[in-house]
Amino acid sequence: MNQEPLILGIDGGGTKCRARLCGLSGAVLGEAVMGPANVRLDLDQAWASAGEAVEECLRRAHLAPHDRSRITACLAFAGATEPTVLDSVRARDHPFARAIVTSDGYAACIGAHRGRDGGVVAVGTGLIGWAVLRGTQHRVGGWGFPVSDEGSGAWIGCEALRRALWAHDGKARWTGLLRAILDSRSGPHEIVRWSTRAQPRDYAAIAPTVVEYASRGDPAAVELMELAASHVDATASRLLAIGVPRLAVVGGLSSAIEPWLSSETKRQLTPACGDALDGAVRLARAEVEVAAAAG
Amino acid sequence: MNQEPLILGIDGGGTKCRARLCGLSGAVLGEAVMGPANVRLDLDQAWASAGEAVEECLRRAHLAPHDRSRITACLAFAGATEPTVLDSVRARDHPFARAIVTSDGYAACIGAHRGRDGGVVAVGTGLIGWAVLRGTQHRVGGWGFPVSDEGSGAWIGCEALRRALWAHDGKARWTGLLRAILDSRSGPHEIVRWSTRAQPRDYAAIAPTVVEYASRGDPAAVELMELAASHVDATASRLLAIGVPRLAVVGGLSSAIEPWLSSETKRQLTPACGDALDGAVRLARAEVEVAAAAG
Repeated sequence: MNQEPLILGIDGGGTKCRARLCGLSGAVLGEAVMGPANVRLDLDQAWASAGEAVEECLRRAHLAPHDRSRITACLAFAGATEPTVLDSVRARDHPFARAIVTSDGYAACIGAHRGRDGGVVAVGTGLIGWAVLRGTQHRVGGWGFPVSDEGSGAWIGCEALRRALWAHDGKARWTGLLRAILDSRSGPHEIVRWSTRAQPRDYAAIAPTVVEYASRGDPAAVELMELAASHVDATASRLLAIGVPRLAVVGGLSSAIEPWLSSETKRQLTPACGDALDGAVRLARAEVEVAAAAG
Repeated sequence: MNQEPLILGIDGGGTKCRARLCGLSGAVLGEAVMGPANVRLDLDQAWASAGEAVEECLRRAHLAPHDRSRITACLAFAGATEPTVLDSVRARDHPFARAIVTSDGYAACIGAHRGRDGGVVAVGTGLIGWAVLRGTQHRVGGWGFPVSDEGSGAWIGCEALRRALWAHDGKARWTGLLRAILDSRSGPHEIVRWSTRAQPRDYAAIAPTVVEYASRGDPAAVELMELAASHVDATASRLLAIGVPRLAVVGGLSSAIEPWLSSETKRQLTPACGDALDGAVRLARAEVEVAAAAG
């Protein structure tokens, strides 16, 4: 029976969970994308999404469930920054040889700069700034919607709804975006009903529409992208003040938001070498090496 | 057994529920204040709060539970503007002779102008603009936190938390208010935990602290009160554009926010003749008169 170690990275975001299974050589054996994986908002759901993603990776790699005992995993989850949440995640039984749990912000930073010192602004369902500097991690923002995460997909979606309601109330001019948002929800009462139970990922699902309208010059969409970008600028500026030698904007909305950033921020950006999934795989591999060195 | 009709007004807000029981002459027989009564966020709770308030009114009036059958009630609830929610409220069994269900915004408008044409901006846990004009009601905003209700207590509390987190992250200057907010919650992780389950009334509970710091010139508090006031200005301006002949700012935060309003808005304001509870009582009395006229 093959007992060679396997490497697994999980990038659990607020909207989807990605997984990659590799051999020790680095060869990719299987990848998968499953549902939401924010451990603060719903740990059971996040755990299930990650489990399904692992199962799918194994299936694609023509491996069996018992091969999970060969895996060293890095589980990087949105929401895995809060101490009590982290404790709950780490207390869960897992089927792996070894597993480390960390935040998707840290994994994004490791992925973007191949483990070297640097910073990222990760913009997806949420928004967080993360830096690694001489062995120390620094966090900027990312405390969750609605008290934080300004500029994120959830924030953009909520602000777009707000402006659609303003237009409905006669407090702002109608634009194509605002009309589309209100029409697609059969009016304000439907938005109210929906918002009673809406999660950050539900708000974030509106962001691509805003991005699309902004690219066509819709005034409300342009204003929102500019505002969102100004929040990314503020987080970038804080990371630079901390002293990061390199900085990248990463995450699902990064390419959509980059055109709207200030020239000051743009001048400081370096392309990311990889994403949070690359970072999680790198962290899992480092864990194998640590274990091997320890004997 | 006394069968003279009784009049009951309920002003159910996002944070508390007030009730007043009167005789046909207008004499107040009993008043009470109970818990939250937003029928959209928690109908069972709102119904229970209202029931307890009625019970307490009867007790204070030295009346018995069976005297509820003498009551004509106007139940004005926060959240009672959404058609499906209204249907659910109206489908509930009640012990009164007659009961009408309406929104606290409408009751506030009727109370402020003694039933005459006019408009109100009602600022409490939420924020809504309401106008009555030649028999027609007009609504501006008040679609609920977080997609609407800018300038409300919930909005002020959320924005104060946001700025406290900015200061913690080094993205904004510390002020006494921001330090007090973060310290009273043992840091950002505690805010994250709290926010996962926080309701609008929980955010609104922070607003009085902001009001207090603003009165002492705290820069973050002053900026927030100015921003909140600008949202009240925008709603007031829309009501004036609709054509209201008189306008009042009412609700639990009205006196706190009035000093921060624009001079343009201040010039247009008239003092409210009464509040939403007065409005609810007036609407209940009108209902008795309608029934009497119908014979």
